[in-house]
Amino acid sequence: MTHSILSDLKWRYATKKFDSSKKVDAEQFEILKNVLRLTPSSYGLQPYKFLLIENPEIRKKLQENAHNQSPITEASHLILFCLNLKINSELVASHVTNTAHTRQLKIENLKSYEFHLNSALNNMQHNEKLNWAARQAYIALGHLIQSAAQLKIDCIALEGFDHKAFDEVLGLEQKSLQSLVACAIGYRSTEDKYQYLTKVRRSENELFETI
Amino acid sequence: MTHSILSDLKWRYATKKFDSSKKVDAEQFEILKNVLRLTPSSYGLQPYKFLLIENPEIRKKLQENAHNQSPITEASHLILFCLNLKINSELVASHVTNTAHTRQLKIENLKSYEFHLNSALNNMQHNEKLNWAARQAYIALGHLIQSAAQLKIDCIALEGFDHKAFDEVLGLEQKSLQSLVACAIGYRSTEDKYQYLTKVRRSENELFETI
Repeated sequence: MTHSILSDLKWRYATKKFDSSKKVDAEQFEILKNVLRLTPSSYGLQPYKFLLIENPEIRKKLQENAHNQSPITEASHLILFCLNLKINSELVASHVTNTAHTRQLKIENLKSYEFHLNSALNNMQHNEKLNWAARQAYIALGHLIQSAAQLKIDCIALEGFDHKAFDEVLGLEQKSLQSLVACAIGYRSTEDKYQYLTKVRRSENELFETI
Repeated sequence: MTHSILSDLKWRYATKKFDSSKKVDAEQFEILKNVLRLTPSSYGLQPYKFLLIENPEIRKKLQENAHNQSPITEASHLILFCLNLKINSELVASHVTNTAHTRQLKIENLKSYEFHLNSALNNMQHNEKLNWAARQAYIALGHLIQSAAQLKIDCIALEGFDHKAFDEVLGLEQKSLQSLVACAIGYRSTEDKYQYLTKVRRSENELFETI
């Protein structure tokens, strides 16, 4: 007997061709948004933003800058994961204020916590911060991919695009954001031959070692 | 009504204190290993390895190099995610051979696929490759965290440790591996006060923007 987590992960595949007539309904998509929101991140800082790209003309422009990959325009939904470029004391302050509010604490009592978070960030160079933030965003991507599969919704993570062009099309620099990875979400086309291929994974021996 | 994916993600938290008397049973842990194995990765290359650290003395040494964080020794299981430092044509060749074997294809027919994968890797500098590999590993971390929650198993992802010391204790350089992030897995102690705190997350308005 296989646990449903595993059968769902076996069912999913990187969908190359979507059925553009099938839309993910609003309630299901709301679950996926909540998954992204609930995703844990280092220090709870959530140093990213999720752009939900609905505008068909913008989707077309993005597709042109992504090797013409059809999921960008044909999938029901497109989420662009962006890094927050302002990983600084302001981001920390907003998190600390939120913590005080959520947990009904006095903000004065969180000063040493705030100091600790700022010290942690100050120990990183700008590029280190971006790589750290990117890794946090990929936890969210992992949650999204798994959750979609569990809702029997298809998706594909897209890394192969012209990041600078995406940033320009969407005016991300002015928003202090940087495009990281996209995820197209919807339903597979019966014509997508990839769904019929056996999944390829390294052997347990190659992937694991007990010490 | 909340979907169980969301209630499980709300149930989980970064467990700071584990009940060391409670062990994750072998069958459940096998599910988590299979989740890690099924995790998708860019080009399917799985440029990482998972070390299952069982040896209590080694766990103690690791704890000493990780701000003495107790989950490292007290949790039932400890998985160390490591980057494969040999992201090269050999890694590609092993993937292509595996693909041919899994899908019962002739390896000669996968030559252009192999060339494409090698070109993609050759376009990256060494550091870019490592950051790319790290992001792939964090998809696996996302799957692991979510799957553990769905099995009502607790965990905490640990990034705050002396990576060089970990690499030395485990002799990772000789294995062409580099420590990335650890995940301690087990069951929460009733004494862990963090489980009773309200989860803090940025608002939907802050995290999402529709375009």
